[in-house]
Amino acid sequence: MIDQTLLPHEHVTLAFDDYREVARAIKEMRVRGAPAIGATAAFAMALAAQHSPARTTEHLLADLREAAEVLIATRPTAVNLAWAVRRVLRRAEAARDLAPDAIRALVLAEAQRIADEDVAINKRMGAHGARLIRDGDTILTHCNAGALATVDYGTTLGVIRAAHEAGKRIHVLVDETRPFLQGARLTAWELMQEGIPMTLITDNMAGHFMSRGRVNIVLVGADRVAANGDVANKIGTYSLAVLAKENGIPFYPVVPTSTIDLEIAAGDDIPIEERDPREVTHIRGVPIAPSGVHVANPAFDVTPHRYVTGIITEEGIVYPPFGLGLRQVKEKAESYGA
Amino acid sequence: MIDQTLLPHEHVTLAFDDYREVARAIKEMRVRGAPAIGATAAFAMALAAQHSPARTTEHLLADLREAAEVLIATRPTAVNLAWAVRRVLRRAEAARDLAPDAIRALVLAEAQRIADEDVAINKRMGAHGARLIRDGDTILTHCNAGALATVDYGTTLGVIRAAHEAGKRIHVLVDETRPFLQGARLTAWELMQEGIPMTLITDNMAGHFMSRGRVNIVLVGADRVAANGDVANKIGTYSLAVLAKENGIPFYPVVPTSTIDLEIAAGDDIPIEERDPREVTHIRGVPIAPSGVHVANPAFDVTPHRYVTGIITEEGIVYPPFGLGLRQVKEKAESYGA
Repeated sequence: MIDQTLLPHEHVTLAFDDYREVARAIKEMRVRGAPAIGATAAFAMALAAQHSPARTTEHLLADLREAAEVLIATRPTAVNLAWAVRRVLRRAEAARDLAPDAIRALVLAEAQRIADEDVAINKRMGAHGARLIRDGDTILTHCNAGALATVDYGTTLGVIRAAHEAGKRIHVLVDETRPFLQGARLTAWELMQEGIPMTLITDNMAGHFMSRGRVNIVLVGADRVAANGDVANKIGTYSLAVLAKENGIPFYPVVPTSTIDLEIAAGDDIPIEERDPREVTHIRGVPIAPSGVHVANPAFDVTPHRYVTGIITEEGIVYPPFGLGLRQVKEKAESYGA
Repeated sequence: MIDQTLLPHEHVTLAFDDYREVARAIKEMRVRGAPAIGATAAFAMALAAQHSPARTTEHLLADLREAAEVLIATRPTAVNLAWAVRRVLRRAEAARDLAPDAIRALVLAEAQRIADEDVAINKRMGAHGARLIRDGDTILTHCNAGALATVDYGTTLGVIRAAHEAGKRIHVLVDETRPFLQGARLTAWELMQEGIPMTLITDNMAGHFMSRGRVNIVLVGADRVAANGDVANKIGTYSLAVLAKENGIPFYPVVPTSTIDLEIAAGDDIPIEERDPREVTHIRGVPIAPSGVHVANPAFDVTPHRYVTGIITEEGIVYPPFGLGLRQVKEKAESYGA
């Protein structure tokens, strides 16, 4: 994996052969983005299977269940991680009649399938979403929901890439996304590499540009969507949604159906990860606040569905009321896997 | 003056004997905050008078008019700067019958009077505003409208200090205030020095805490208030006002009457300063974005008066409709000087 904590200043690729090291890399956000950590955790399950000394299927499954717990515990908000790990585990458990090495092969194949599907899903979301983008539009985005946040192509940046590839002249306003600066470091870098025109702004400028009529649509990713359409995403998303509604600007999360969690009724039940205060008080090791200052660092917030114009998925765009539509796209996506 | 670009990491005091150096320090934001740059520019006028080689009153007044132009051009948004410079200039022009040295003395006395008045005004605003703060309240604030932004005591932080001095148990949520980090560097530092409980957050967390019922009142400073009550203040203020309204939280700018500009009918006419992109792309000299990235850096935004609950001034709190009330407090304040 690319070490995303070092981008865009350094481009370092990391390799792992212990799933516990992968778990730590996820926790430290060396890899981040809901779909990317899902696929990464699936491959970590394959590593756990590969390196398990188990000689019986029973022991191997016990090792895999332990690995699944460690991996799922790394980050609580994004549901794709648990979704991918459980999918791999189910695949192994369904094959409990086979020998350990056969299960090891199945687990690796399932991880690879999750990764391959992710790219295809992003291209389908891109095609659906690009229809919302008009020639000349300015798109505001937050955090990084790009190729780096996925296996490739991206969710939000997938829509932006698809619109750009279709020849639409677009401009992207990129929130820097404090504290981790995914916008400044990752989204700006991806867009510059693609030659898509963009302007970097601080998060608190987004409302100003909306109020001046300079934003046509807001596109964000998501870490979990509840059954009622409430959206957990990177801290700051809720504010953008309120500001978009106030200024009559459409607001669309772009999410693979694996991000939809029908077991969570509403956003208030989504666990919000609190991260290290040092992410706020230090930037690249440099202190920016008085020593000993008290800090809050919630990594995500919840946008109630009343602020959401529509949700772009690989199975199409879901509009309110979200309850039925989300169930439909989720069932449709899962029917392929059956 | 304290070099505010170095706080809280270094505490360096600067001294000047050329008004042009003071102008540069204002431009570089070594001193910032609408009332503070007003008082600073007034003393810069005194320096200009002191060091002018003029032997006639006519020449001295010409030199002062030139200094006034240089000083007013440094920062376009905050009106206190122009207000203070023009007040000093008027004092000199009204005394055109006197000898140059007498005018030099008058100019210095007027600058000192502006500085002395500022502290008294802040204490009066503090007393008015503190009545809005209840025991147990959490106050959200943005940027630095503290002792550092004024001659002493502060506008917004004056209200907070007054509530704290009255024994109310309060907590302050401090927006870090990108790009210049006045909240993280200056407001956090001031509050910690006073022992007022506080939590530092990134700007994009403010909406999240409002939506969770964790904010009781929003207090901000202002750089200019138009005749209709529209408020220009540090970038990000507009977003806070919209989010406060959406969540039923009162939103009060705290402004001396010198910040009210009755010659500007509405906020759209207030000039918004665009600052160096490097403030966004670098933090304390460290790059945080890809080299060559395109950046916008508006230093202020405008909050339409429909989001403003009330405006706290030294002459009392003005409520909507603002047109009449702002004129009344402005006239009342100016009647003392007559």
